[in-house]
Amino acid sequence: MSGIKAKIEEANQKTLDILFKGQPVLVDIRPALDVVPGMTENMVLHSAPPIEWERMCGPHRHGIAGAVVWEGLADTKDDAVTMIERGEIMIEPCHHHDTVGAGAGITSATTPMLVVENKTFGNRAYSCLSEGGGLQLIKWGSYDEKIAENLHWQAKVLRPVLQAAVLSAGGVDIKSIISKAVQMGDECHNRSIAASAIFFREIAPHLLHADANRDTVLSCTESLAVSEHFFLHAIMAAAKAMLDPAKKISYSTVVTAMARNGVEFGIQVGGLDDMWFTAPANDVDGLFFRSEWGPEDAAPDLGDSCITETVGLGGFIQAAAPTVQQYVQGSMQQAIANTNEMREICVGTNQDVQIPAMDFAGAPIGIDIRKVAQTRIAPLIDTAITHKEHGLIGAGQVRAPLECFDKALKAYSSRYAAA
Amino acid sequence: MSGIKAKIEEANQKTLDILFKGQPVLVDIRPALDVVPGMTENMVLHSAPPIEWERMCGPHRHGIAGAVVWEGLADTKDDAVTMIERGEIMIEPCHHHDTVGAGAGITSATTPMLVVENKTFGNRAYSCLSEGGGLQLIKWGSYDEKIAENLHWQAKVLRPVLQAAVLSAGGVDIKSIISKAVQMGDECHNRSIAASAIFFREIAPHLLHADANRDTVLSCTESLAVSEHFFLHAIMAAAKAMLDPAKKISYSTVVTAMARNGVEFGIQVGGLDDMWFTAPANDVDGLFFRSEWGPEDAAPDLGDSCITETVGLGGFIQAAAPTVQQYVQGSMQQAIANTNEMREICVGTNQDVQIPAMDFAGAPIGIDIRKVAQTRIAPLIDTAITHKEHGLIGAGQVRAPLECFDKALKAYSSRYAAA
Repeated sequence: MSGIKAKIEEANQKTLDILFKGQPVLVDIRPALDVVPGMTENMVLHSAPPIEWERMCGPHRHGIAGAVVWEGLADTKDDAVTMIERGEIMIEPCHHHDTVGAGAGITSATTPMLVVENKTFGNRAYSCLSEGGGLQLIKWGSYDEKIAENLHWQAKVLRPVLQAAVLSAGGVDIKSIISKAVQMGDECHNRSIAASAIFFREIAPHLLHADANRDTVLSCTESLAVSEHFFLHAIMAAAKAMLDPAKKISYSTVVTAMARNGVEFGIQVGGLDDMWFTAPANDVDGLFFRSEWGPEDAAPDLGDSCITETVGLGGFIQAAAPTVQQYVQGSMQQAIANTNEMREICVGTNQDVQIPAMDFAGAPIGIDIRKVAQTRIAPLIDTAITHKEHGLIGAGQVRAPLECFDKALKAYSSRYAAA
Repeated sequence: MSGIKAKIEEANQKTLDILFKGQPVLVDIRPALDVVPGMTENMVLHSAPPIEWERMCGPHRHGIAGAVVWEGLADTKDDAVTMIERGEIMIEPCHHHDTVGAGAGITSATTPMLVVENKTFGNRAYSCLSEGGGLQLIKWGSYDEKIAENLHWQAKVLRPVLQAAVLSAGGVDIKSIISKAVQMGDECHNRSIAASAIFFREIAPHLLHADANRDTVLSCTESLAVSEHFFLHAIMAAAKAMLDPAKKISYSTVVTAMARNGVEFGIQVGGLDDMWFTAPANDVDGLFFRSEWGPEDAAPDLGDSCITETVGLGGFIQAAAPTVQQYVQGSMQQAIANTNEMREICVGTNQDVQIPAMDFAGAPIGIDIRKVAQTRIAPLIDTAITHKEHGLIGAGQVRAPLECFDKALKAYSSRYAAA
């Protein structure tokens, strides 16, 4: 038994080392078809874990059907559903294509993607561009003419200009932006306004280097200047790019992915290949943005965005972002208690992410399935609340279901006890 | 006695009302000669309180002589000193010209000025543009060819482009930027990176509206994108624009200005006209940016920048900016204690400036000379450390000398006891 403990310790230290050494850099902006591994013209990706069409939540069904129309594969959402039911559209989780998708995670061939490379290990991860503000976005499963028009503008106008800017900048170091943003009140999940502002400072001059006329540069500058969540998607892709090299490390008990599809919550574990361990997704506790909305309108927990918690951001560092407490009527004291609680289920401390209000203590990082199972402390996730049909209706926090971790630990015991 | 107490209470409430109702807006960027009241071609302004040339600190003497050369009034700094000693150059405090100057506060006819209007009361206040980063700036009393070149670029290139952008934006609301920046780790004196980033987001698209070629717009965009303290000067002018209408209110015991000239610290009080009450300036306690520098190299407390503390920012809200504690080896607990201490000498609480780490408690605002004199708690000021000759050498914090407040209270008692 002490033999396996030493192996686990070694594997988890190796995992931490991989996370700490990761250097995620935004290197390009390309259409999904050009860069996302395995992407095809008739494929739509959604937030993980995998789930059959029939069991999908509203935002997935509406969003995927919308994407089929947007790609010109069908004339109407009804036609799209018919095609989907006939098996003419391939529907797969983002995570299975080195991609993470916020909310419903709707990603199709033409979607402009942030290309993030982990310079240390050479792997890449992807996430779509933020669509900007508003409650009705394809990210939340919504689709109409206005949404389509914005997506077309992003694909046709913004993508090439932003690509030119990113190339002109020689890439954008995401890790340093995260470090700075956490000094500025972002926990980098429900709040990424500082990260978005720092990114904007870095990229705005380079927009002027794009081969585009002044009005086009102006429209792109205006769009990025007001996009308060723009950089969240880059942080998500960075988190995945940092975590992917920590997959398939024998004996590792560290969680390498957490994701929700609005029905189930799933996790992956370093020592357990690409297996998903799932349990019913919890309801999100939080603030509804209009008085007409309440818990009965909400879909359960949805989206790949909790990849941020998987690298020790978001709910794991609530103490860095007191403003986010306002969604849950919390307090600074509660936020600090929550951050300290997350330390109990993590294997390490990340000095690249220092929490100002805790005298610059490093963030907890690396969720250990053993610690979760033993302490019964579930990972705390800051997240949006999606309407059960489609649309953003609130924001708050949610716990990962303990059952995922129990299942993973059982599978782990089977595999490594036999070894 | 109860009669005078009621009058003081009424006057101080009126003062608070004026501070809360103030709406400082950046409305223009103009050369000092065009806008600063009383400015002439042979005048150089410096940080207050007033002081004779012979008694001035190094940064003032070097900076003023440099400005005389920069304006083309003399060929060398030695010639400039000769002119100054002959009385051919008028030397006056910024504060006497509705202006505030950071550090040495060097402001001359050609200096590009931020024009801030208090929309509620119609008054205006001014501050020069931040020169950007670096330890050797005319702001710190330094002057050489490189500094001159940058000042010329600011005056000739940046000023008209930034002016066009500010006009295109219809002005920039400084109060809302302060509110947001305090949610992002700025105390708005030693740290204004968030405020500068928010300002940059607001102004960057408008730079493209300027009647200037793409390379010029690019150079201005690049300059503003990296200027981490850019918005401090706007905040200073906003603070003065908010405080000036609170001057000359009979019976007010609220401080309307604090300023340091590297020799003396001075305050003005609402009920005591434009009189300065001075005492020797204290030494700044803090971090020196190079190991070769120590307290013996430093000038005493210098600059008009503590106008920020006079409106309850900077050292009064250290709890909003834990990063600033790093200059003084402080802690979050100490920062909170300092903020609570400042409440003891203030007449009000400013809900426009909420401190995240204190569960969004409002900032203390409105220093009451009676409370300072009674509690012996001196206002706490975050500030830079200037070399005794010239140049920036560190940052930290300093207390206002109690003697100023004692003198002011004595003058107050004489005036109002006689009334």
